[in-house]
Amino acid sequence: MGGVEKKKIIIDTDPGIDDAMAIFVALRSPEVEVIGLTTIYGNVYTTLATRNALHLLEFAERSDIPVAEGSHVTIMKTTKLRIADFVHGADGLGNQNFPSPKGRQIDQSAPAFLVEQANLYPGKVTVVALGPLTNIALAIQLDPEFSKKIGQIVILGGAFSVNGSVNPAAETNIFGDPDAADIVFTSGADVLAVGINVTRQVVLTDADHDKLAQSGGKYAQYLSKILEFYYAYHHDAYAMQGVYLHDPTALLAAVNPSLLTYIEGVVRVQTTGIMRGLTIFDNSHKRFEEQTEWSHKPIVKVAVTVDAPATVKLVMERLMNL
Amino acid sequence: MGGVEKKKIIIDTDPGIDDAMAIFVALRSPEVEVIGLTTIYGNVYTTLATRNALHLLEFAERSDIPVAEGSHVTIMKTTKLRIADFVHGADGLGNQNFPSPKGRQIDQSAPAFLVEQANLYPGKVTVVALGPLTNIALAIQLDPEFSKKIGQIVILGGAFSVNGSVNPAAETNIFGDPDAADIVFTSGADVLAVGINVTRQVVLTDADHDKLAQSGGKYAQYLSKILEFYYAYHHDAYAMQGVYLHDPTALLAAVNPSLLTYIEGVVRVQTTGIMRGLTIFDNSHKRFEEQTEWSHKPIVKVAVTVDAPATVKLVMERLMNL
Repeated sequence: MGGVEKKKIIIDTDPGIDDAMAIFVALRSPEVEVIGLTTIYGNVYTTLATRNALHLLEFAERSDIPVAEGSHVTIMKTTKLRIADFVHGADGLGNQNFPSPKGRQIDQSAPAFLVEQANLYPGKVTVVALGPLTNIALAIQLDPEFSKKIGQIVILGGAFSVNGSVNPAAETNIFGDPDAADIVFTSGADVLAVGINVTRQVVLTDADHDKLAQSGGKYAQYLSKILEFYYAYHHDAYAMQGVYLHDPTALLAAVNPSLLTYIEGVVRVQTTGIMRGLTIFDNSHKRFEEQTEWSHKPIVKVAVTVDAPATVKLVMERLMNL
Repeated sequence: MGGVEKKKIIIDTDPGIDDAMAIFVALRSPEVEVIGLTTIYGNVYTTLATRNALHLLEFAERSDIPVAEGSHVTIMKTTKLRIADFVHGADGLGNQNFPSPKGRQIDQSAPAFLVEQANLYPGKVTVVALGPLTNIALAIQLDPEFSKKIGQIVILGGAFSVNGSVNPAAETNIFGDPDAADIVFTSGADVLAVGINVTRQVVLTDADHDKLAQSGGKYAQYLSKILEFYYAYHHDAYAMQGVYLHDPTALLAAVNPSLLTYIEGVVRVQTTGIMRGLTIFDNSHKRFEEQTEWSHKPIVKVAVTVDAPATVKLVMERLMNL
């Protein structure tokens, strides 16, 4: 890359089949340097997320990258979590019975690691948050300067003007910790939310799956196996011949921002009632008569379009070679 | 109309400038017979809504139509109401200092009147609800058979996949009594919701206003005066050279259903928190893993498109002649 500085990325993740894809794409993207993984509950419990993160880095021969374990409970200390094992398998990686990782996580917690790295490289670190936002909200609470020191927070989360994924109102990651999400959206950090209204435009077809399986590359081989469970879920839940590339799309929004367009405005999260986890973006088209809960809150970015063919192509290219 | 039976309509209303338009259009539509007005708070308090309803019928020389006064509080007995006098004027009719009506309301309450008429003409009465849904919910609670006996309930309310009008989440009428709205949407009645996502497509321009003012018709003359306040609000709040025909559009959905298209599914209303009054429609595109608050609830209709030019033309025609 010569004199060009690589973008430093921390992936906050709950691997997760599409998390594994996103992590491998990141490791194979010359534009970015993955400086750590932080783990969270979501697709699996946090303990298993940590185990899977270590396993994925060992598979990629990148055990030099630190893994910091994140929160086991929501920011309100809720311990009854919604775990999406029906999407990713009981082990989070398509029930492939992978061996235990040899390494272990660092002693620092995920929020402490996030704060440390933001202080070490102010304005230079991008967090790509692929699960519930507990760790990011805890980092904001730990260090009042975190939201200014972090470069950008790319969130895979939200369902903007479309139905949710957990229920008609809420998308999975925001539903996982709505209180944390509202803290992050109103923190003043440079936030880009990539919701399911965008990621559902990016589909890896059954034919793409075949191509991965036929490719000799080690990542393609690994992923084509764990993806079987993910395809089976999509065939059943959505009656579709393909899978959504949620996590890889959010990751690529950090690697190559020109793949997406976005709008700017205030986002709030409903934290109670039947629409808990719902995200509402204020498009500012109307002057409301009264102050609202959106008034005078920090502006964030919300993705609205994605170049889906280019995104799928980039994912395939980065995974198939070697 | 020969042997064709006119559709019986009760308008539940909080007049209100566009309510006045809708009432006049209804009275001048040969396809329907207005068998009563019921009143509710919203644009004005209920007492003033009753006074205005009586006044409008006297102006139209239709004092034969009964007015039944509705609830003064929400279904949860909230007395702190949100009154939109900034849209309609302190008198609800553009501050024109109209004389007091000579007649008075019937002794029956609005919910009792609704129940009585539904029993009198089972399956034949359409309620066009132009304000918060308290009276309709009370009728449902008063008579468990009401939702089956009423022909259709056309609701002006909701903001489906768009920002609200009170705040980014909630539309005015649903926000006025979210608990009542959720009762109505889940009652099993034949409900058609016409939200601001549809009514904001139907604009009466400044030029149309001029046409009304230049027309010799008594309704056009009356409305062109009271509309001045409504235009001023729209110029200010939306920076637009026209006004939204919310209430006339909902009314015409009952008079001529072919002006709109709709989708069918379950609608729920958020009743607490910062998104109180938000409506969420389940498009049923996904099989959710868990039971949701939308599961096994009655199906309603939600308008998605409107023939806006035809709607505006019909409003103008019915108001300008005579």
